[in-house]
Amino acid sequence: MSRVPVLATLPPEVVTLGDHTKHARTVLDANAWAYFSGGAGDEITLRANRAAWDGLALQPRVLRPLAGGHTRLRLLGRSMEHPILLAPVAYQRMAHPDGELASALAAATLGAGMVVSTQASVSLEAVADTFLSESARGPLWFQLYMQHDRGFTRALVERAERAGYEALVLTVDAPTHGARDRERRENFRLPMDVHAVNLAGLPPAPPPRLNTQDSALFQGLLHHAPIWDDLTWLHGITQLPIVLKGIMHPDDARQAVQHGVAAVVVSNHGGRTLDTSPASAAVLPRIAEALQGVLPLLVDGGIQRGTDVLKALALGASAVQVGRPYIYGLANAGALGVAHVLKLLRDELEIAMALCGCATLADIGHDVLWSADPH
Amino acid sequence: MSRVPVLATLPPEVVTLGDHTKHARTVLDANAWAYFSGGAGDEITLRANRAAWDGLALQPRVLRPLAGGHTRLRLLGRSMEHPILLAPVAYQRMAHPDGELASALAAATLGAGMVVSTQASVSLEAVADTFLSESARGPLWFQLYMQHDRGFTRALVERAERAGYEALVLTVDAPTHGARDRERRENFRLPMDVHAVNLAGLPPAPPPRLNTQDSALFQGLLHHAPIWDDLTWLHGITQLPIVLKGIMHPDDARQAVQHGVAAVVVSNHGGRTLDTSPASAAVLPRIAEALQGVLPLLVDGGIQRGTDVLKALALGASAVQVGRPYIYGLANAGALGVAHVLKLLRDELEIAMALCGCATLADIGHDVLWSADPH
Amino acid sequence: MSRVPVLATLPPEVVTLGDHTKHARTVLDANAWAYFSGGAGDEITLRANRAAWDGLALQPRVLRPLAGGHTRLRLLGRSMEHPILLAPVAYQRMAHPDGELASALAAATLGAGMVVSTQASVSLEAVADTFLSESARGPLWFQLYMQHDRGFTRALVERAERAGYEALVLTVDAPTHGARDRERRENFRLPMDVHAVNLAGLPPAPPPRLNTQDSALFQGLLHHAPIWDDLTWLHGITQLPIVLKGIMHPDDARQAVQHGVAAVVVSNHGGRTLDTSPASAAVLPRIAEALQGVLPLLVDGGIQRGTDVLKALALGASAVQVGRPYIYGLANAGALGVAHVLKLLRDELEIAMALCGCATLADIGHDVLWSADPH
Amino acid sequence: MSRVPVLATLPPEVVTLGDHTKHARTVLDANAWAYFSGGAGDEITLRANRAAWDGLALQPRVLRPLAGGHTRLRLLGRSMEHPILLAPVAYQRMAHPDGELASALAAATLGAGMVVSTQASVSLEAVADTFLSESARGPLWFQLYMQHDRGFTRALVERAERAGYEALVLTVDAPTHGARDRERRENFRLPMDVHAVNLAGLPPAPPPRLNTQDSALFQGLLHHAPIWDDLTWLHGITQLPIVLKGIMHPDDARQAVQHGVAAVVVSNHGGRTLDTSPASAAVLPRIAEALQGVLPLLVDGGIQRGTDVLKALALGASAVQVGRPYIYGLANAGALGVAHVLKLLRDELEIAMALCGCATLADIGHDVLWSADPH
Repeated sequence: MSRVPVLATLPPEVVTLGDHTKHARTVLDANAWAYFSGGAGDEITLRANRAAWDGLALQPRVLRPLAGGHTRLRLLGRSMEHPILLAPVAYQRMAHPDGELASALAAATLGAGMVVSTQASVSLEAVADTFLSESARGPLWFQLYMQHDRGFTRALVERAERAGYEALVLTVDAPTHGARDRERRENFRLPMDVHAVNLAGLPPAPPPRLNTQDSALFQGLLHHAPIWDDLTWLHGITQLPIVLKGIMHPDDARQAVQHGVAAVVVSNHGGRTLDTSPASAAVLPRIAEALQGVLPLLVDGGIQRGTDVLKALALGASAVQVGRPYIYGLANAGALGVAHVLKLLRDELEIAMALCGCATLADIGHDVLWSADPH
Repeated sequence: MSRVPVLATLPPEVVTLGDHTKHARTVLDANAWAYFSGGAGDEITLRANRAAWDGLALQPRVLRPLAGGHTRLRLLGRSMEHPILLAPVAYQRMAHPDGELASALAAATLGAGMVVSTQASVSLEAVADTFLSESARGPLWFQLYMQHDRGFTRALVERAERAGYEALVLTVDAPTHGARDRERRENFRLPMDVHAVNLAGLPPAPPPRLNTQDSALFQGLLHHAPIWDDLTWLHGITQLPIVLKGIMHPDDARQAVQHGVAAVVVSNHGGRTLDTSPASAAVLPRIAEALQGVLPLLVDGGIQRGTDVLKALALGASAVQVGRPYIYGLANAGALGVAHVLKLLRDELEIAMALCGCATLADIGHDVLWSADPH
Repeated sequence: MSRVPVLATLPPEVVTLGDHTKHARTVLDANAWAYFSGGAGDEITLRANRAAWDGLALQPRVLRPLAGGHTRLRLLGRSMEHPILLAPVAYQRMAHPDGELASALAAATLGAGMVVSTQASVSLEAVADTFLSESARGPLWFQLYMQHDRGFTRALVERAERAGYEALVLTVDAPTHGARDRERRENFRLPMDVHAVNLAGLPPAPPPRLNTQDSALFQGLLHHAPIWDDLTWLHGITQLPIVLKGIMHPDDARQAVQHGVAAVVVSNHGGRTLDTSPASAAVLPRIAEALQGVLPLLVDGGIQRGTDVLKALALGASAVQVGRPYIYGLANAGALGVAHVLKLLRDELEIAMALCGCATLADIGHDVLWSADPH
Repeated sequence: MSRVPVLATLPPEVVTLGDHTKHARTVLDANAWAYFSGGAGDEITLRANRAAWDGLALQPRVLRPLAGGHTRLRLLGRSMEHPILLAPVAYQRMAHPDGELASALAAATLGAGMVVSTQASVSLEAVADTFLSESARGPLWFQLYMQHDRGFTRALVERAERAGYEALVLTVDAPTHGARDRERRENFRLPMDVHAVNLAGLPPAPPPRLNTQDSALFQGLLHHAPIWDDLTWLHGITQLPIVLKGIMHPDDARQAVQHGVAAVVVSNHGGRTLDTSPASAAVLPRIAEALQGVLPLLVDGGIQRGTDVLKALALGASAVQVGRPYIYGLANAGALGVAHVLKLLRDELEIAMALCGCATLADIGHDVLWSADPH
């Protein structure tokens, strides 16, 4: 982390994750704002992700015994204090000079899990060092994009293993960039001093040989996109559990089980790939139904309130990942901002649980959701 | 009441409860406005409460005999002129120097019932004196928060009995403060001269002993929250009928019956505790169905029109409680403002009854509501 | 009509009834605008009336033979060129010095029917003179409010008969004024020179004797409101067919048949009486179903497009009444403005019929409406 | 094309078809903007066309093999690179001096099909010359309005045949102009130098002989509107396949099959004829069901994204027509602008296919659409 501590000046009116978002817009430059906040296309899915959580209603209960409750759970064989993880987000030094190190420090201190991006702007080893030094820490996972060079991919996996990461999160919902129109309108460029440092040394992909009418996408780029068989290859080079991120169809969830994955993340990449794909909250119950509880299930996309976390658990999630909000906390006040975001989310989750009569996560069932049509 | 009468200058364009709201925003300071008007979280439930009444359609009827009709009813063994009560609202001297005394005077004169808050800013005895001196008055009830000190709670109940309160309204939907974000953003503070005078002398709660990762909520605060067994204790120390306020689930309503309560209030605390809990108008028919008429049923949340009152009765309520609107009337013109609010509401109720062909409350059935799908 | 012709200066961008509305807002003073445009309460029904027509979709058909089509129909035993009537609107001299005379001239010339209000600001005889002198004219009806003085009411009916009115339209949906809040906010007053001239000489109603807590509405005003039995009385004093206006419930429609009425008008009084009553377009098909075609059925409320007229006919109406739009035409350009409104409406109806493959009104069935759910 | 090349200055922030629309509004004069962008009536159908595509959700799939995919198809007996055609739009020289020639050049170069309007502002022969000289070109079709003079219509058809057009697209959804209110408000006039050059020499229609109350529409104009029998006449004078454009009812689609047409276009004329007709995306699946695949099915109306194209194919379309967006591209930068629009659309289609796991058009089934109610 930076030697000279960044003065954390979170304004007093920032009391929710939504406030963090609003404030970050005044802190980040247009380039970084477009990158972090933007979605694909007309951002219909981006907005739907948020709206879907708001559209679910909670069922209050009264006079139940709640004293001594808690939010603890077990996930991939270990205990954690609460069901919140930081989602993988690239290039965090674009949000704050301390970048991923600040996020790691805050997450570990607050007992949250962290999924570190392949495209982190700080080396995966440095992030792990910071995170693993906290005893209250949650799980530490490494998010993997399969690279066109399999040798490089293997070396990356081995580095993650050595650094102490406890699982690999293979992102499968982005075989190609989405139509990231906001970024293009802003003519987004990485700042000079921000790099995907973990990918240093990756040889360039061989250029595809295309005829005039050939599609650069289908004839070029997609030749390197991962397919189901690549899971077998990945299992062959690592002992780490593999988590699949980006599952939106029950059949894909079932196929994931057959391919021996350890957990599944329902995600539409925060609305950044395929616009008008459904909200993750809408898809979550179908994936839960398909999995029948045989695997831990996570979800991300639009979670911004403790009530959203409660709803995700009620729909079958074991835990949730939060993305943009902690980046905004990071932009607003470095590690302190990320910690503030995590603290708010956990406090709100506890309040929501109490008002729905749930003392522990085990008390959270589908009946926590109020249905307009009860029959 | 203040010796020097506050000049009541209600502008002529204030002709509805909505107008009172708009005007009050210009009268109250930001601190008081945030406190009275704010809701939990993103105020989704706060808005849903209003929208749900607007979303119900009324069925007009024609050429029925209406002469000689009225709005009288019996409630907890006594008669009242119309089915409207003032909901318990704390710290009313923050809205107007006359505070709860003005509300009591107006309510009693207009034949409305009144539920006085534990956290009133005028002593419960003074409020009762004002209210009970009016012969046309409706029922007078005392709203009770169970305190961490049971001796103090018992003393409070005994004071209410002595002062002439006719029922206790135990609020059970707020074992913890909601995420009252608007208040927090405004950094809400009680003014120096406004206190919860009825709680003077309450010893502070013993601080919980917490480990580092312990939840202040579950390990601390919730140890003092009331549970079903406390109803038995309360019955043991008072002869007053007990009304349960904050019921939102049919099973909780049924359990209330088994615990011998005298009436139930469907309420989400005006959207101030659990955001995204359903609108009270949406929950009301389910509670009515669960109760099968064995107990009087009240409702609050978003009622602002005589048509809303009619709809509540059509959905199974015996009477309604109105909260924020009378506080705005109080802010706008003291007792006169509260009286104006109650007068408008009753007049509108009568007009709506007449246009739906109902001469008395007994004529109000579910068929007063128009259904888009009639089958 | 005024001797000095009012210069009709309809701006060229006024090409729809909606444009007439917008323009009239700049022409009418705030007092008249509040009276003509306002609705009851929060004007939810006022807006719903418009929105319901917009919400119905039309089913285009192609390549059908349409040459020689027309919009003629028979109504109460006479022929008319198209199914559009002017709804009764009071005090039209508040919109334009020529008042009801201009409306009558335009309606008669354009072949529309006209329903003249009891509260017209020009004598019912003068309006009839103007209207009946046009050979192309449609039907002329007199709208009747039952007055507290039955002798006066009888005299009014006899005047209408003598003047040549062909039917009485008894308005039954307004036993009391609605909560006309916009008017009250504007402190609406009739201008000095505008009167309900047909009611001149009506003795004042005897003041009700009320006790303190008595309702002025139920114990006073409603003693004079018409009930079903009054229809028998009305039949006894006139040979004119009686049309009931303001029917919104199938049972009331059936009762109307039993009381020997000649036609029924589905109407919520243009959203001016009971706010949150359903849109007339939503109620129309239920009344049509109840009547089974035994009586002609009319509808008003929110009709502003030829497509709306087509939809009304598809839902079972024989003809439609248009209210506010012609008043705006009147305000904008006197008789010429009313004529423009009627011309636009008829032209749009013909275009809509052609594009739905209907050459005559007889071709208009329920299948002209497109249903999102075809089964 | 113009000898002096128009400087194409597409601003860098124009990266979507929606951006082209926004930019074109600043480039086109009010007259041309009203003509190209306007719809019928209140433009409810115009907006519904767009909203319907946005309202459909796509189902992402992961880890499928996609390398080597493509967007090729066969249509009316020939191959084309992707399923996008330019819809017929009149008077394109009003958008840009190069008019239809620029559109033809861009479409042919980008492999798109083109449907040339009867009311083109460049001769049909010149457009064909430009289009047919490109080897990568898609199909070239001629859009036909049946004229009141059948001899002239026949000559027009023969010119189209001679010029190399491969099909006739008979537009049947506009027997009369719609209520094009925006145009009328703007008092739309064709510029002096823009003409329907293909209709030069058309003798004027004989004026109808009308009685006073006769409808100019039904007694006049509609005598020249095409009916089903005219299809037989058209088949008799040409060997070209006939495509029917403007089908919105399943029965009309079935009748089209019986009349030997070669393909059907679901269209509401871009919302320019009958306002409140349903969105073409809502109608498309019903027409597809009626046709059971016996004919190629096209659709236009509101398509503005590659995801929209994918959804149209998933609902049963073989190909799509795009109208306004390419006109905006034309206005913004001539041929280059049209090419940019087509390139964006195709790129977005490929990305959407990849993210839904479709390597070819044959992989696109109804299961590409995500349904909120899966059962």
